Amino acid sequence: MSAEIARLCKASLQSAMVGTDENNIQSGKDFYKFFFTNYPDLRIYFKGAEKFTADDVQKSERFEKQGQRLLLGVHILAETYANQEVFKAYVRETINRHRIYKMDPALWLAFFTVFNGYLATKTQLDDATKNAWAELGKVFNEEAQTHLKNSGL
Amino acid sequence: MSAEIARLCKASLQSAMVGTDENNIQSGKDFYKFFFTNYPDLRIYFKGAEKFTADDVQKSERFEKQGQRLLLGVHILAETYANQEVFKAYVRETINRHRIYKMDPALWLAFFTVFNGYLATKTQLDDATKNAWAELGKVFNEEAQTHLKNSGL
Repeated sequence: MSAEIARLCKASLQSAMVGTDENNIQSGKDFYKFFFTNYPDLRIYFKGAEKFTADDVQKSERFEKQGQRLLLGVHILAETYANQEVFKAYVRETINRHRIYKMDPALWLAFFTVFNGYLATKTQLDDATKNAWAELGKVFNEEAQTHLKNSGL
Repeated sequence: MSAEIARLCKASLQSAMVGTDENNIQSGKDFYKFFFTNYPDLRIYFKGAEKFTADDVQKSERFEKQGQRLLLGVHILAETYANQEVFKAYVRETINRHRIYKMDPALWLAFFTVFNGYLATKTQLDDATKNAWAELGKVFNEEAQTHLKNSGL
């Protein structure tokens, strides 16, 4: 049920909170450090940062901001999941905003694997929480693929 | 308390739901029809639409999309309000995205008067709900003004 999935996802995100404090800023950078270290091939989507190491991310003002944007986006997914029409509208808006990056459509589902890998570095994820994220990611991806088709993308 | 404010705001937004159906699309257009009719001076912030009438909005693909974006943004405010750090992060992100429009900072608080006027055309707003929106708007505005100052805007 969507309310229980939302509850579990939101609880796990307490370990990766957005905010202006040093530790919140670091949580955002840590996502990109994890991402670029473990999925270096996907750096091609970050123009100018195609060869960035974790150290480069750590020192980067761009990824300081980008880290907060990314975390905020995921928090919004969890916060809206119990209200499926709002959740799906946010999925469509996210797809629209990424149009310019010409991403492989398969990456939308893959994102949740990456994000859960990152989240597992911050907190212990039990099976119920992993399943909740898998379900949220599945619903996200269904709406994303539908919207990509409807938009001719 | 933030959870009760969120509950009231979310309930009132059921009458202005986002979505891909005709009535959802219309709800978004209706915001801009209301806005431009009642606050024509603020059309200056919409380049190319400075003289738009309600009829122009009705026929406009731009405001069909913009209407959904606007409604989604307000839904996200209500959905995140019970989680104040996420709410405030979304406020900051919203300010960042509007930087290019060089808005009068006073308009951030004024927006909630406009939006409640629109919402009152869709549903009966009782005093508790009006107070809830006023409080949400106040907290939004506090974070907005702080962020504008911190960003040198």
